[in-house]
Amino acid sequence: MSRIAYDLSRIKAVVFDIDGVLSPATVPLGEDGIPKRMANLRDGYAMVRATRTQTLSLCIISGADASGLRERFAMIGINDIYLAAGDKLAIFERWMDARGLSPDEVAYVGDDIPDLPCMRAAGLPVAPADAASECRQVARFVTKAAGGYGVARELLEEILKVKGVWPVDGDLANGR
Amino acid sequence: MSRIAYDLSRIKAVVFDIDGVLSPATVPLGEDGIPKRMANLRDGYAMVRATRTQTLSLCIISGADASGLRERFAMIGINDIYLAAGDKLAIFERWMDARGLSPDEVAYVGDDIPDLPCMRAAGLPVAPADAASECRQVARFVTKAAGGYGVARELLEEILKVKGVWPVDGDLANGR
Amino acid sequence: MSRIAYDLSRIKAVVFDIDGVLSPATVPLGEDGIPKRMANLRDGYAMVRATRTQTLSLCIISGADASGLRERFAMIGINDIYLAAGDKLAIFERWMDARGLSPDEVAYVGDDIPDLPCMRAAGLPVAPADAASECRQVARFVTKAAGGYGVARELLEEILKVKGVWPVDGDLANGR
Amino acid sequence: MSRIAYDLSRIKAVVFDIDGVLSPATVPLGEDGIPKRMANLRDGYAMVRATRTQTLSLCIISGADASGLRERFAMIGINDIYLAAGDKLAIFERWMDARGLSPDEVAYVGDDIPDLPCMRAAGLPVAPADAASECRQVARFVTKAAGGYGVARELLEEILKVKGVWPVDGDLANGR
Repeated sequence: MSRIAYDLSRIKAVVFDIDGVLSPATVPLGEDGIPKRMANLRDGYAMVRATRTQTLSLCIISGADASGLRERFAMIGINDIYLAAGDKLAIFERWMDARGLSPDEVAYVGDDIPDLPCMRAAGLPVAPADAASECRQVARFVTKAAGGYGVARELLEEILKVKGVWPVDGDLANGR
Repeated sequence: MSRIAYDLSRIKAVVFDIDGVLSPATVPLGEDGIPKRMANLRDGYAMVRATRTQTLSLCIISGADASGLRERFAMIGINDIYLAAGDKLAIFERWMDARGLSPDEVAYVGDDIPDLPCMRAAGLPVAPADAASECRQVARFVTKAAGGYGVARELLEEILKVKGVWPVDGDLANGR
Repeated sequence: MSRIAYDLSRIKAVVFDIDGVLSPATVPLGEDGIPKRMANLRDGYAMVRATRTQTLSLCIISGADASGLRERFAMIGINDIYLAAGDKLAIFERWMDARGLSPDEVAYVGDDIPDLPCMRAAGLPVAPADAASECRQVARFVTKAAGGYGVARELLEEILKVKGVWPVDGDLANGR
Repeated sequence: MSRIAYDLSRIKAVVFDIDGVLSPATVPLGEDGIPKRMANLRDGYAMVRATRTQTLSLCIISGADASGLRERFAMIGINDIYLAAGDKLAIFERWMDARGLSPDEVAYVGDDIPDLPCMRAAGLPVAPADAASECRQVARFVTKAAGGYGVARELLEEILKVKGVWPVDGDLANGR
């Protein structure tokens, strides 16, 4: 049984904010005053698993823009990367349309107030443990992990298990 | 009701130290031996909210100087940035004069002994959870967050809520 | 008595994954989108001790590749460093063969699903405190330390003590 | 009353290791594989206070060497900086001789086994909360702070208070 009170078998796509979700809320500043982002490598494993098995469409919508972000997520196999996003909801709705997704097929993971409209619009809104209280209230699933420390892993693992594409003992005994 | 025993509706300005307040006390050293600062991006959201709504004047007074700091805070909409500050109290008092602010209209957030004179001079002295004990004793509000991990967010959210400019459910349901 | 339910006197070699083992799971991103790794310097002390006393062969097998990694581990005295490893199990088995090691003489420390085949193949599978649950289940020893925060130290100290090459009081009183 | 069971009024000098003491045990790796160190800025305040009031001689003895370290500690007013130290005890004893210090006038702060000979040789051996168990056993004072997160501050504050050169309320009320 999943820890999430939602029919995860219906989820076809997951949208992630970056700051406070895939990267911690507190990060180093670059020489140019632009925050340098961080990444959790076990998040990375689950994201690769989701895309390589073609089980889930993954999408990034972030107000942030910094060198390295697009490269990092492209390496992981994410094609839909919207950085420096002003109006997240408009981008989110256009993206769902273009992909032929209905809101109940989509999880959106956000940590702060600019994410609230998208969280309300998504079937499965998700928030990290240290998200703004407004986001945690709207979320149907609050991860144990704080932003940047395994949020995507925790969510994707639940979804991929329900969908039967998370590696199980037999697979692993046979090699990988 | 606010968690802070002060009439927050009177606050017109907030002054921040950087090290141990907006940036953690422990940070990476640059190749030149100058500490590289960090930033909390949920602090950033609240600071932008405070300046864009013209609700609060924000000011930085710091003994620190490092590349990226001025750029970061300017991006957030802070105009008054005093770096490499020797005599913080003199700068603070001159700044209040120039802005026509009385001390009871000003919150000052500091974490260490060089901040104490300004904290005593401000109507609402604030300290992070991990500040020097001297600062926590003088503070009228000690944040739950440690320096660099959401101190400004915690304070500004309280003030902006009292002033009615923190986004509420209705705003958010309508888009942003 | 050791905290590990295994005859540590038989261990002749230890193999380490990097991400989530020698380096934390959450790390800064470089400008090129490649994660920058971190190191624990007390891990370093124990690894130098193991190699300099010729007590243990140490080996790195990691899917990661980033500048600095090879240099760091070479400085510590590790000769067998396999980066950008695709099929970890094949590399691991070939390496044991080449070194004339049987699985029960080898400890393998891993934190995520790609490490599971090697962990099953090794006599002493080890996982950090924050490893994927699958790894912690397979492990015969789960360290108190989270990945990147002293995992190698905790394991190597136990092994080197059993083998009598961990510095003891007498050595230290005499100089080092 | 001090928390340290030692006549702190006798202490004339404090010697610090860097890794695991002034800088955390886990730090980022540079492109060249050399660990990049970190610094705690409240440690910095106390070190400046100790040297500027000429109350204590401060000295760094570290096996480490990395760009930025010498610059950082020189800025803080430390003149005696021994990096890439092989035989720490020899350096320590020669330094005490040259400075005309007897061991009971010196505190030595170390976190790992290479520090043990110096810790035994010093009147007041000190260890961070997360030091190697051997160091914590030898220490007469174990700080609450972990290495890199305020160890020097905690020790120096105690010593400077006993010596009456830690800023007190009156000083601060008068300006700084």
